[in-house]
Amino acid sequence: MAMALRLAKRGQYTSSPNPNVGCVIVKNGKLLCQGFHQQAGCGHAEANAIASAAANNIDISGATCYVTLEPCSHFGRTPPCAQALIDNHVARVVVAMTDPNPQVAGQGLASMRRAGIQVELGLLESQARLLNPGFLSRIERKRPLVRLKLACSIDGKIGLANGQSKWISSVQSRSDVQLERAKSSAILSTANTVLADNASLNVRGDELPKSHCLDLNALRQPTRIIVDRQNQLLPQANLKLWNEESQVLLLQDQPYQASNSKAQTVCVPQSKTWLKDAMSLLACEYEINDVWVEAGGHFASALLQSNLVDQLIIYQAPIVLGGDGLSLFGAMGLDRMEQSFRWQCLESRRIGPDIKTTYIPSLEA
Amino acid sequence: MAMALRLAKRGQYTSSPNPNVGCVIVKNGKLLCQGFHQQAGCGHAEANAIASAAANNIDISGATCYVTLEPCSHFGRTPPCAQALIDNHVARVVVAMTDPNPQVAGQGLASMRRAGIQVELGLLESQARLLNPGFLSRIERKRPLVRLKLACSIDGKIGLANGQSKWISSVQSRSDVQLERAKSSAILSTANTVLADNASLNVRGDELPKSHCLDLNALRQPTRIIVDRQNQLLPQANLKLWNEESQVLLLQDQPYQASNSKAQTVCVPQSKTWLKDAMSLLACEYEINDVWVEAGGHFASALLQSNLVDQLIIYQAPIVLGGDGLSLFGAMGLDRMEQSFRWQCLESRRIGPDIKTTYIPSLEA
Repeated sequence: MAMALRLAKRGQYTSSPNPNVGCVIVKNGKLLCQGFHQQAGCGHAEANAIASAAANNIDISGATCYVTLEPCSHFGRTPPCAQALIDNHVARVVVAMTDPNPQVAGQGLASMRRAGIQVELGLLESQARLLNPGFLSRIERKRPLVRLKLACSIDGKIGLANGQSKWISSVQSRSDVQLERAKSSAILSTANTVLADNASLNVRGDELPKSHCLDLNALRQPTRIIVDRQNQLLPQANLKLWNEESQVLLLQDQPYQASNSKAQTVCVPQSKTWLKDAMSLLACEYEINDVWVEAGGHFASALLQSNLVDQLIIYQAPIVLGGDGLSLFGAMGLDRMEQSFRWQCLESRRIGPDIKTTYIPSLEA
Repeated sequence: MAMALRLAKRGQYTSSPNPNVGCVIVKNGKLLCQGFHQQAGCGHAEANAIASAAANNIDISGATCYVTLEPCSHFGRTPPCAQALIDNHVARVVVAMTDPNPQVAGQGLASMRRAGIQVELGLLESQARLLNPGFLSRIERKRPLVRLKLACSIDGKIGLANGQSKWISSVQSRSDVQLERAKSSAILSTANTVLADNASLNVRGDELPKSHCLDLNALRQPTRIIVDRQNQLLPQANLKLWNEESQVLLLQDQPYQASNSKAQTVCVPQSKTWLKDAMSLLACEYEINDVWVEAGGHFASALLQSNLVDQLIIYQAPIVLGGDGLSLFGAMGLDRMEQSFRWQCLESRRIGPDIKTTYIPSLEA
């Protein structure tokens, strides 16, 4: 199963909106074949493993199959994997976790058991869950996993009083950001940020860290989601955003502009829960597993105050900008320390001269 | 020598203003005796090692002595160690570094060489220098090593808009601060901070980390230095500061108050280089090796802008206070990113829920 978990990770830059899944088939202590899920529409992990056995004339009848997620039982983009394992007379299937997708949800396990296969559930389950936090968030919570990225100085400033902010973080941190973008289903920003930086919000292969041997040809560009409630991003404007191939979703209060070749308009009616509503829509209608947010302090505060941030990722550069610099977050009007937003450090590590820290909401909050 | 370095560290909470020194005497691969310098006025490391040999009837003639700092050649608070090694007929002395103190500065080595001892210099020199950054700063740069401690939130805030700031950092961080205080020659703060918190600025033995087996009886209270240019700290005021035994130095522009039983007044005439002048005075007149600064954002900025901060120590708590909170530093009026104060991360580690990061000035700055 540990091997299957490692295999699953190989799909992390390409599998969205599908989950990362790995599969290993063994018999008498010998590895027969393996597979992982690379891309929606292409073979699932089990199907790939079975196909690889067939291609090498290997008989998998009587074998044990280790798979990180419950084999599917329905005809989706591909035929059901549970049936394929039954048809190939596998004797035993060890599954790390059930698939929470209501189209599967235990039916894959049930059909294999009915066919006489010995099915075991729960081996390394928590590790398997960590493979797909975004997928699980979309299916279980009906909203994407929201990861808010911020870059600041030692004193928590994102720029000078006059607005200058290039570059706070190092080239190594910016390269790491490219990697994080590549892992995400979508990159979310605001019209203000797009206009201020003429940002293209894409993944630039040449800026990825050299140490990562990503297959640049298989690289999937994340969906770009822009909060544009004032209709600031006109289709005719000369924006780098429009030059890229990947999808742009404009989150707007009302249909200011028709969806066109450059952008699709997503209407979320004005309300106090606008941000939450938008997130639900992105998960349920657009199959967005996770969003990587790059925006200004104002929008960051709004996300935080709506309790929508699942991970706070801070790239802190070793510089001091002074108390008159621009703050990481907008004003929050707290008047007691107990009201502060509490986090928990998940990981902190050096990236070049900077420190990258990932926080998750505190359980005590 | 590695053993001598380890021994030297045992004096780190007590030796100030003297340096930490360790000494090991061996013969034919066998350890004869060892010593370290515990406290000014008491035996030096070599003297302690020799005394320990004598107490155990061990003959050290013909032996090799490893010592982390050049043996002294002058009569100070104790008799010269170079002479003691000569008198005891040691054959060879291996010294990590010369003593930059002008009263020694090579004379210890010279006198031993004249007496026919084989003297070697430089083994693990850089490690030996790290034992005594404050002592070396005082002797070589004629100013103390300045360590500025700050506690803040993820977003670089030291409190709420209304001034509330207790407690930003965790009990574990505050305990670590007690350890840092205990290591320092002096704790430096401002009258504003003392008045706001009614701070006593002492080392509280019961708040030290349990993991540190410090001898609480040997604990030396650091000198307390308060910048009080407006004469705010009146001797008759009911301040915790006055209740403690250890010395208080009031840094003032002019002799507002006579030195009294509670505080000694140190006058530094007003000038643009006031802070630098004060530091020189503390090193040269008061033998302060290093100061641990705990003060507000305003004073922190002044120190930074005077290029007097040798180490910036940030305790960052996993909370967000919002853009309207109080900033870590005062306004600095920068208008180009290139003017930012540049640092280099020396160490970053988790302390309880917080992250403690130590920065030193960037070499590129």
